[in-house]
Amino acid sequence: MGSQAGEFRVSRQTWQFTRDVRLVSSATAVGPKEGEGPLGTYFDKVYDDMYAGQDCWEDAERQLMEDAVQLALDKAGLTEQDVDVIIAGDLLNQNITTNFTAEQLVIPLMGMYGACSTSMLTLANAAALVNAGYVNRAIAACSSHNATAERQYRYPTEYGGQKPPSAQWTVTGAGAGLVGIGGNGPRITYATIGKVVDMGVKDPFDMGSAMAPAAVSTLQTHFTDTGRTPRDYDLIVTGDLASVGYPIVKEWMQREGYDMEGVYNDCGLMVYSPEQEVFAGGSGCASSAVVTYGYIVDQLNKGLLKKVLVCATGALLSPVSYQQGNSIPCIAHAVALEGGEA
Amino acid sequence: MGSQAGEFRVSRQTWQFTRDVRLVSSATAVGPKEGEGPLGTYFDKVYDDMYAGQDCWEDAERQLMEDAVQLALDKAGLTEQDVDVIIAGDLLNQNITTNFTAEQLVIPLMGMYGACSTSMLTLANAAALVNAGYVNRAIAACSSHNATAERQYRYPTEYGGQKPPSAQWTVTGAGAGLVGIGGNGPRITYATIGKVVDMGVKDPFDMGSAMAPAAVSTLQTHFTDTGRTPRDYDLIVTGDLASVGYPIVKEWMQREGYDMEGVYNDCGLMVYSPEQEVFAGGSGCASSAVVTYGYIVDQLNKGLLKKVLVCATGALLSPVSYQQGNSIPCIAHAVALEGGEA
Repeated sequence: MGSQAGEFRVSRQTWQFTRDVRLVSSATAVGPKEGEGPLGTYFDKVYDDMYAGQDCWEDAERQLMEDAVQLALDKAGLTEQDVDVIIAGDLLNQNITTNFTAEQLVIPLMGMYGACSTSMLTLANAAALVNAGYVNRAIAACSSHNATAERQYRYPTEYGGQKPPSAQWTVTGAGAGLVGIGGNGPRITYATIGKVVDMGVKDPFDMGSAMAPAAVSTLQTHFTDTGRTPRDYDLIVTGDLASVGYPIVKEWMQREGYDMEGVYNDCGLMVYSPEQEVFAGGSGCASSAVVTYGYIVDQLNKGLLKKVLVCATGALLSPVSYQQGNSIPCIAHAVALEGGEA
Repeated sequence: MGSQAGEFRVSRQTWQFTRDVRLVSSATAVGPKEGEGPLGTYFDKVYDDMYAGQDCWEDAERQLMEDAVQLALDKAGLTEQDVDVIIAGDLLNQNITTNFTAEQLVIPLMGMYGACSTSMLTLANAAALVNAGYVNRAIAACSSHNATAERQYRYPTEYGGQKPPSAQWTVTGAGAGLVGIGGNGPRITYATIGKVVDMGVKDPFDMGSAMAPAAVSTLQTHFTDTGRTPRDYDLIVTGDLASVGYPIVKEWMQREGYDMEGVYNDCGLMVYSPEQEVFAGGSGCASSAVVTYGYIVDQLNKGLLKKVLVCATGALLSPVSYQQGNSIPCIAHAVALEGGEA
């Protein structure tokens, strides 16, 4: 169980967790559209309206994150006192959903921001701190809400602004993973931390194209660093590239010699059905968070999946940077999850 | 040099770094007002206007962070290729300063957000990852800019809105600390991660009062967890409580049995002189960052200070949460720095 200097460093960007670090439990809470989607039955709590019993959308998003964390604790039979730290982030300015959730739960907070990559950024950091023995248990969490994101990033919702088909639909939901040592949950074995990649895309209604190169960069780095190939996984997902970004990554990886045919999917394509009118597909931190902490963890626990790589993608723009004419800096962070019994 | 499970966990909130983790180098870049302040000579780069040679304030803030990181690398005789990760954050929405800086430097990025506590949040995380051996070297960095913060958090600057004396002046600057193992720089020995504390203060023009309880919480936790007392340090600083929050913390700690007389100061009071018309004093991530990475590191390197505790304070509100009538959630993260030769 001891560790040597550098034992956890596989390379500049990839860490290995050798101390039986696991998702002790995980939970999700979502809005109505997500509940009606193809993965609806995998989510722990489905609200039938966007307000989740609150008076405004921001409070609703807070409710979703609190639900996800509380349900993860309940499933593990633990209370907030059993957790040393919550490592979390969201899409709202100043991470406000996260801040109020941590206040409510009275768990020490480390706030993170990686746009929609926050799901795996927080999980990677939680696993690192648990694996090294800084904390006994950590919660990784993130959230997004369609209506809070719309009015913050784009137009007042009531304005009803039109969008091109390459636009995406921000997932309303939150996911939380409780990370600890031992047990039967999925093991967290590797994390690959991304670099910022910016190919000059400036259109905030085409995040899929903007983020695809960041996903390719992190996936290639992960395979090179670990000596693994796409065939070592039975599922590789990106976070929210949707129907525009997904084929770019697939083809680009193919060209670079990584055949992901049959094992590659995108959370933004999995969370909604095409009939749900979501433009190119889902986006937001919650896209990868609810698919991972809902569907993927379930499949790993049932043995229906053995090894999964979740590569969460994030577009690190701000409305101001976009208005000032800047291109969209993007990033992707990947975490490997493996069936608990292996 | 090996580590055992839990060796680094002193308690729920406090970590110990036992592997000779040090600030290999650090650097700061500031605006004109900070250059004219009492610590002006300790800053590496002082711009004589708020634009720092750029076309807009947001680009100026980016320039400050790039300068701080680049100068820290230069001082250590290293390049960006020698650093595994930059762990950084700022006050602008979506951490945009951080994102563009990481893009420019091509260093893998972990984005964090803790409002003005980001300076020590990022340093704590950097020290943790280096100490455990996930990365060989990490850069912790943060920035704030008076003009970008004013227009984002308060009023368009041109509006010339008046403020009460309890308001604070956002520091224009950036600080970066390069963390590695060994050498002669200040040792990073402990970090105490804060909980969110919210005593119901709702006035965004009185951040000092809002943040003081969070500072008290983290300071008390640090002393309890480490068995240290204020007398074990020759300097204890909070980040940006300024003239309203500073006496609250001092008196409150006194009442709780911690006499900080003669060893306690606040970076928001140190960075400007009272004649500089800064209302109650400095604020912003850069307040604690430039004082720590400029003045405090210098004094530690010269042996004029031996043990310093930096308790960076953050007000985790957003303009939306304030407008929606919420109180201000606050947090403080503390890091202990000790003279390199000890």
